Amino acid sequence: MVELDKSGEKMAVVLVSGGMDSAVAGGLAREAGYGIYALSFDYGQRHRVELEAAGRVSAWLDAVEHTVIRVELERIGGSALTDDIAVPKDRSGSEIPSTYVPARNIIFLSIALSRAEAAGAERIVIGANAIDFSGYPDCRPLFIESFQRVAEIGTRMGVEGRAPMVWAPLIDMSKAEIVKEGIRLGLDFGITASCYDPGPDGEPCDRCDACRLREKGFSQAGAMDPLQKDR
Amino acid sequence: MVELDKSGEKMAVVLVSGGMDSAVAGGLAREAGYGIYALSFDYGQRHRVELEAAGRVSAWLDAVEHTVIRVELERIGGSALTDDIAVPKDRSGSEIPSTYVPARNIIFLSIALSRAEAAGAERIVIGANAIDFSGYPDCRPLFIESFQRVAEIGTRMGVEGRAPMVWAPLIDMSKAEIVKEGIRLGLDFGITASCYDPGPDGEPCDRCDACRLREKGFSQAGAMDPLQKDR
Repeated sequence: MVELDKSGEKMAVVLVSGGMDSAVAGGLAREAGYGIYALSFDYGQRHRVELEAAGRVSAWLDAVEHTVIRVELERIGGSALTDDIAVPKDRSGSEIPSTYVPARNIIFLSIALSRAEAAGAERIVIGANAIDFSGYPDCRPLFIESFQRVAEIGTRMGVEGRAPMVWAPLIDMSKAEIVKEGIRLGLDFGITASCYDPGPDGEPCDRCDACRLREKGFSQAGAMDPLQKDR
Repeated sequence: MVELDKSGEKMAVVLVSGGMDSAVAGGLAREAGYGIYALSFDYGQRHRVELEAAGRVSAWLDAVEHTVIRVELERIGGSALTDDIAVPKDRSGSEIPSTYVPARNIIFLSIALSRAEAAGAERIVIGANAIDFSGYPDCRPLFIESFQRVAEIGTRMGVEGRAPMVWAPLIDMSKAEIVKEGIRLGLDFGITASCYDPGPDGEPCDRCDACRLREKGFSQAGAMDPLQKDR
């Protein structure tokens, strides 16, 4: 098994989606002194421009690696993000939307746990947040706690009493607070991508949940989104 | 979202590895009246002959589908099953062996949970057993319970109070009991494959943990393994 990095640096596996949340979460891990294994997924998402953004974010994080793992979730179906279902626009209401990918964060955390265990990393970092979010059940603090328990019981590291800690540093932050943290960390938000349904050149649709939450965050933080400035 | 099968039959997602345990577990699900979505993984395993066996087992189960999902776990590393590490032979002792794939059952259950949720299945069936097993932490009853909690908290079905039940019907059975159950269910064990390190024509090595546990099960059950009979 690959053990801790030769430098003795403490390491974290960061789930990097290409969006602003995981970029800020990764920035907080780096600020806390962690070396970073960046991990992204090619899961048949329609917004594949996010994988390019994930590469830019990983470079900003000085990640020692950026691994993109293919997982054929488009063969599972059931979501507007991977299936032939329209992405909802200008949505109101609090029900779980059709962009929910069944068990997506559980799958991503499981593979991050596998990578953390293979590499001997101490933390798994996820940008989930439960305040200004789309209502996905796998973004709530209780979910993170339940997954932590799985990591403690279901892995070799857990049996040895050193399960990786699942760290969701944004879990209680509003989108405005996340924008402010990103600004403080020196993140150029122009390298990130949030839209679920971008145009042919990757331009955001401005109307899906992800675009609207992002706009709300910048607006409430009194900041300008570089993705809007150039348009 | 695809809902319950048109026939109204209750459905289960069965993790079919191609080995005898998942075949017997699936057989018990069928006996309990479930229609079956069979799910297997192409995860870079060196014993790929098991995917052919998984297809035969799915046919025996009368599965309405057999989906093989590609997950690039060979890019995670850390295991003799996916990495360039020798499969241990004639092993003694109770430590977790190098064939342990970090968090493998967590990943497989997560994807099964996604499929169950997309298809509206009531159960997820896994052939894990904790008696005559290789010492993997993700085969223990406490692990199954911890994953059940994740399913209840981290999914839309869970929020709606109808999370799929993770069912491990073999969890407390010895290998001999599993062999006897398979015989009772009419399973031809010749269609299954257990070896971690099979020869070029798929013939078992007889010396890895999987081969030795299988041999022990047949021997204690007083039965003949058809994979041995033909040799």
